[in-house]
Amino acid sequence: MKRSVIRELLKLTAKPGIISFAGGLPAPATFPVDYVEAAVDSVIENEHATALQYGPTEGDVRLREDLAIIMRTDGIKTTPDHILITTASQQGLDLVAKVFLNPGDTCITGSPTYLGGLQAFKSYQGVPVGVELDDHGMIPEKLQETIEKLEREGRRPRFIYIIPDFQNPAGVTIPESRRKEILEIAHKGEYLIVEDTPYRQLRYTGENQATFQSMDPDMVLSLYTFSKIMLPGFRLGWACGPHWLVEKMVMAKQAVDLCTPPFNQAITHSMLVNGALEKGLENTIALYSRKKDIMLECLAKEFADMPNVKWTKPEGGLFLWLTLPDGMNADDLFQKAVDENVAYVPGSAFFPNNDDHQSMRLNFSYASEEQIAEGVKRLAGVVRENR
Amino acid sequence: MKRSVIRELLKLTAKPGIISFAGGLPAPATFPVDYVEAAVDSVIENEHATALQYGPTEGDVRLREDLAIIMRTDGIKTTPDHILITTASQQGLDLVAKVFLNPGDTCITGSPTYLGGLQAFKSYQGVPVGVELDDHGMIPEKLQETIEKLEREGRRPRFIYIIPDFQNPAGVTIPESRRKEILEIAHKGEYLIVEDTPYRQLRYTGENQATFQSMDPDMVLSLYTFSKIMLPGFRLGWACGPHWLVEKMVMAKQAVDLCTPPFNQAITHSMLVNGALEKGLENTIALYSRKKDIMLECLAKEFADMPNVKWTKPEGGLFLWLTLPDGMNADDLFQKAVDENVAYVPGSAFFPNNDDHQSMRLNFSYASEEQIAEGVKRLAGVVRENR
Repeated sequence: MKRSVIRELLKLTAKPGIISFAGGLPAPATFPVDYVEAAVDSVIENEHATALQYGPTEGDVRLREDLAIIMRTDGIKTTPDHILITTASQQGLDLVAKVFLNPGDTCITGSPTYLGGLQAFKSYQGVPVGVELDDHGMIPEKLQETIEKLEREGRRPRFIYIIPDFQNPAGVTIPESRRKEILEIAHKGEYLIVEDTPYRQLRYTGENQATFQSMDPDMVLSLYTFSKIMLPGFRLGWACGPHWLVEKMVMAKQAVDLCTPPFNQAITHSMLVNGALEKGLENTIALYSRKKDIMLECLAKEFADMPNVKWTKPEGGLFLWLTLPDGMNADDLFQKAVDENVAYVPGSAFFPNNDDHQSMRLNFSYASEEQIAEGVKRLAGVVRENR
Repeated sequence: MKRSVIRELLKLTAKPGIISFAGGLPAPATFPVDYVEAAVDSVIENEHATALQYGPTEGDVRLREDLAIIMRTDGIKTTPDHILITTASQQGLDLVAKVFLNPGDTCITGSPTYLGGLQAFKSYQGVPVGVELDDHGMIPEKLQETIEKLEREGRRPRFIYIIPDFQNPAGVTIPESRRKEILEIAHKGEYLIVEDTPYRQLRYTGENQATFQSMDPDMVLSLYTFSKIMLPGFRLGWACGPHWLVEKMVMAKQAVDLCTPPFNQAITHSMLVNGALEKGLENTIALYSRKKDIMLECLAKEFADMPNVKWTKPEGGLFLWLTLPDGMNADDLFQKAVDENVAYVPGSAFFPNNDDHQSMRLNFSYASEEQIAEGVKRLAGVVRENR
């Protein structure tokens, strides 16, 4: 196992004066501190004996009930016994890998895809096989081809891992019609879809596209987290899927950490019933939407003389994906960018087979509006000088 | 993977009116609620932007510093870079298994040993091989024999897992002289010792025996948790060992849950610097020590007519181990005990190879003093009737 590329990069980007688009951190201004404070007071006052004790592996039943209701408002007909509370969604990925992957087993991912997913799958000696994306996410024809190839080789994939909304790192969203095509392919081969959607509630433009979960709850496991929509410091997420699979994940979780902190779950339950999520999302969406617009405007302005530089235009989430002109290498450019006090994550980190060195991931949630303007200017300067 | 036997048993023992010695829960009266409240207020007031954000995988450096100081008072010469904060000690076990065990790899455990350890090792398809205990814990001669046998078979164990203090489930403690013998055996074969000591600070009689960690920090990884000495609801523990191994566990942890909740770590740091641990331990030791004495007195009284029933006399911790007369089976007796409204965990759950059915684990931390007296009376009645 290798240390996360991003983690190592983040150390480089900690130098003073640097503007970093490298991380994926939410802005602390979005944390609903007042709600946390009120909820903590209530939990300590009224339920400290249970909140400070061990809790059930499945999670606090009240929180699972809250989440079932929240998901129903998004068209997902689920109940608490289909929901497992996880120690944030990274644990969801770990449990999926633990349940499905023996050494050498393949699974399908986007190419590029979330680095933490690749790490989780590889840590069980699983073999992620990438399927190309375009501006509308994973390409169904490519998925079909990849599955057929793997089946011919006797390497039937154990699941299909997809980030359908504002994908990390590419920032692209799969339209509903394409989701249906992907589901049909999955159906044909009886493949489980693992739908990872940490940013779903952070939509700034366009219309919600129905979740895979809402379209086929028997074939889809969905992973969510409070990290990006409320706060990451509680390490709380949830998985929702077929009961048999949630049961298997509960068994796996017993050996992993027994239960997610009951204290954090009790606080979050209290926050949810008092409206912290809606209120927080309102602020967060307003803030990030504006930052996203500013980053897009600055890119258009600063790269106006370089028409061969392309970038995605995300409808939500935290990231966009910038592709350099042919012949340029984002890995090589990284140190030069850091020397000029601007940072990004080289796109190669996100490929199961590290086969693209022309792109980079830019985060727009953490830097201030002024930093975004200045950082994009610096970045354009570095690209211009190294064309 | 099978559901934990204990979890399933606990469901049976949830019936009204039952007195349960089955669980391993701390008494809620020991939770230092006032310290939690003060610490939370301070964290929300002074550091919410970092406490609610993502944190480093290694853990909050302040907490690692606190723990280094605490461990030095126990004769362990360590520094923060030898310490990893874990999502309680179950995660420590998971990370050890993830780093060391490929499918089919053996490791050595006590026979009996902690069920959660067995679950963690088996979840990576590791093969725990048990070494017999006596009233002074793991028997060095049996350890030597087991290692030689495994080496002859080409199945070199990846580590030796030991719970030296007030062992779960047996309640026995390894004397320092025997620890040295075990270390010598480990040295000879260059075997890592995984020292799991969740109850070490809960000693009621006798003298502290030096930790394996203090005797050989290069060959020993030690796992600790706040669950039994402060409160379990934060899910906070730590691992201490050679830097190379802590580094490997950090890498593994990145794929598992990125980081342990920074919020909980910040609160715990504040609690520690304000003396919550000493104060809490004082109360906890007084309470559990008295409960342990009461259980021992009641056992002596209620089983006075059954000299063939034996039990261990723990110097600390949460459990003791009762062995039925030859020919009796604690698994078979379990349902009868539940019918009589008293519960325990059949000892067979704790054996890597389920080869002992004559014993049971009794917990004395959770039931009230009156319940202990009544429960032991009921238990003796069930044994007497089924002799």
